[in-house]
Amino acid sequence: MIAFEKGYAVCIDGKSRGVFETLPQKYSDLPVIDFGDRLIIPGLVDLHIHAPQYAFRGTGMDLELMDWLNQQAFPEEAKYADLTYAKKAYSIFAEQMKKSATTRVCMFGTQHRPATELLMELMEETGLVSFVGKVNMDREAPDNLREESAEASVQATIAWIESVSQKFQRTKPILTPRFIPSCTDELMQKLREIQMTYELPVQSHLSENQGEIAFVRELRPRNKFYGDAYEEHDLFGRNKENHKEVKTIMAHCVWSEEEEVELMRQNGVFVAHCPASNMNLSSGIAPIRSYLDKGLRVGLGSDVAGGHCESIFRAITDTVQVSKMYWRLVDSSASPITFPEAFYLATKGGGAFFGKVGSFEEGYDFDAIVLEDAVLPYPQELSVLQRLERAVYLSLDLNGIYAKFVEGRQLF
Amino acid sequence: MIAFEKGYAVCIDGKSRGVFETLPQKYSDLPVIDFGDRLIIPGLVDLHIHAPQYAFRGTGMDLELMDWLNQQAFPEEAKYADLTYAKKAYSIFAEQMKKSATTRVCMFGTQHRPATELLMELMEETGLVSFVGKVNMDREAPDNLREESAEASVQATIAWIESVSQKFQRTKPILTPRFIPSCTDELMQKLREIQMTYELPVQSHLSENQGEIAFVRELRPRNKFYGDAYEEHDLFGRNKENHKEVKTIMAHCVWSEEEEVELMRQNGVFVAHCPASNMNLSSGIAPIRSYLDKGLRVGLGSDVAGGHCESIFRAITDTVQVSKMYWRLVDSSASPITFPEAFYLATKGGGAFFGKVGSFEEGYDFDAIVLEDAVLPYPQELSVLQRLERAVYLSLDLNGIYAKFVEGRQLF
Repeated sequence: MIAFEKGYAVCIDGKSRGVFETLPQKYSDLPVIDFGDRLIIPGLVDLHIHAPQYAFRGTGMDLELMDWLNQQAFPEEAKYADLTYAKKAYSIFAEQMKKSATTRVCMFGTQHRPATELLMELMEETGLVSFVGKVNMDREAPDNLREESAEASVQATIAWIESVSQKFQRTKPILTPRFIPSCTDELMQKLREIQMTYELPVQSHLSENQGEIAFVRELRPRNKFYGDAYEEHDLFGRNKENHKEVKTIMAHCVWSEEEEVELMRQNGVFVAHCPASNMNLSSGIAPIRSYLDKGLRVGLGSDVAGGHCESIFRAITDTVQVSKMYWRLVDSSASPITFPEAFYLATKGGGAFFGKVGSFEEGYDFDAIVLEDAVLPYPQELSVLQRLERAVYLSLDLNGIYAKFVEGRQLF
Repeated sequence: MIAFEKGYAVCIDGKSRGVFETLPQKYSDLPVIDFGDRLIIPGLVDLHIHAPQYAFRGTGMDLELMDWLNQQAFPEEAKYADLTYAKKAYSIFAEQMKKSATTRVCMFGTQHRPATELLMELMEETGLVSFVGKVNMDREAPDNLREESAEASVQATIAWIESVSQKFQRTKPILTPRFIPSCTDELMQKLREIQMTYELPVQSHLSENQGEIAFVRELRPRNKFYGDAYEEHDLFGRNKENHKEVKTIMAHCVWSEEEEVELMRQNGVFVAHCPASNMNLSSGIAPIRSYLDKGLRVGLGSDVAGGHCESIFRAITDTVQVSKMYWRLVDSSASPITFPEAFYLATKGGGAFFGKVGSFEEGYDFDAIVLEDAVLPYPQELSVLQRLERAVYLSLDLNGIYAKFVEGRQLF
């Protein structure tokens, strides 16, 4: 982790040209914004959040996954059939995302096409770069939330993709089968075709909870492990037929077995580590040290509303904290994730899903957050890195961000 | 957990008279403060915080207990020999405590008498009710922090007690042997006499970390378990000679063995559960469900700066979260602590150390916090209890408290 005191972060045409202690002569004609003594850091990346669950974040937190889905998530998501409610709720969500330290985000909507398109319009207005998914689910959900058939789900998905693919500059569709339990084999097979036609990325859930894993085993006995069910339909990092990459995020991966982990590695699947959610829903602790040792791609997710808060600062400190518990209570060979490592996961780690994102190194997209940490008084000397660690631990982002840039564009 | 919408909390002469849906006739002449749609909750109790560690909260969090003590805590605490630095640092601390949701607090100072008296003056000005301890430590600490001898420690402690005992209305001294490793047997024996003379309460640390426990075993082989070392000197809940209660808080109790737990129960020792600190310092997870089942007295502590933040809202949600991890990963018979239970620990649980504190029930001291949760927008209907759960999970206290009362007195 490198930090400069009173340094310069240079941006041209939305790309970073690097960070410097003194401004190189060749950049001396560029306009300068002086942020004084404030902290400037790369924008943060949220690889996993459910936009329609934002409304009930931080409530009903004493429930476990399946009860929580049935009592909290599904009833709320059903409301997004009503575009008036969707507008009210998603406007709040988009406004809060704009205020947050997050500059890039992959999100689930609901299965409703109009509400999801509205969500994309609102996200486009924020200035963030987003992938947004219309959810597919044609089984194992309440009647008012389940799509009528695989075919109906597919038709709505194609119509949605056709409608939104070219519509926005910063907001793109992502294929979003909710998870194996809520998608029939027929639907999964057709999503494979859609993926091949439109070359969309994919996001879903994987090996979050032991009950869920047992259910997948029951539903699809032919698959060797949970992730193999996605792999069968070429929705797990690569297409076996045409050998193309299928950019994929799998959220959670708390209980992934060895073969699953190895396949994720081979296929370049991104793990969205969501520690707050894993604690709140009593899922367990994902073995992130082992994933990093094996060379998996890992980023962080807030997983609102399994996670109670959109703060990726909080996801960073939660990552460190749960890794310490894992080390102490589960596997003493898995050394804790350090603060710089967790900060990396929240920036370059997840940023890699978007391209060259999450750093001020030359050639990276210029996403930046400016923090006003003077609101946290202190009596002694602190280095820039100590100030950053403190700002992140004290969730300074919840008190607001001073300024925010995405691809070089200042949002506020 | 009981909540009223648009209810009345009645206070006369600093004491609560209860909460009512409609104001009883007999109170109709009392002046009324209308807080509109805001949430009014009992004040929160922090049973364990280190005032001199506040300055470096949220930094150096990748260290484990013993390294953290030597690299972070001890060097900072040594600075409080300088009263100018102490004034600068403690003024920030006291101001932040005033702004927080905490109304009652038990804190460690340093071993320096002048700085500790200054801390008490500053805490008195805040309006909070506090117990403040001048720390005793005559071994196993850096030269610049260790007291010269047991006798020197004792003399300074007596002088301090004589000076402060009658000086403040709301700020009282508490005996504070740092922990067994840093106090010689001679010092502990003399602290016993001081306790008997002045009838002071006691606070210390217990069974936080396995390395620490092994060290205590080595230092005091005659004691059956760690807590037995305090018990030997009658600084563990009761005096064996005169049978008087010795009000005692033991912080952490992560690894307390059965006999220790049973003695805490018999003696009425308060456990200060500090989940954030236990995570940050990789200590482990205290088995709070089992302590509650056995009838132990339990409250919450922020343990700044092992804990990174003074927020007791955060301690509440951390308590729930770590108990879920404990249930999932350590003991599937220890059901998770629920939100109402954790809220209880943060109010009445710790409040019992101060007397009838932590509730609006009739006869309790009137400590109250008013929360402005309208800053957290939402599109749907929420009950009062859902609003409270959300405010706590989203650390609303970090954004400031709308109003605060201690013993019926409005601080702001």
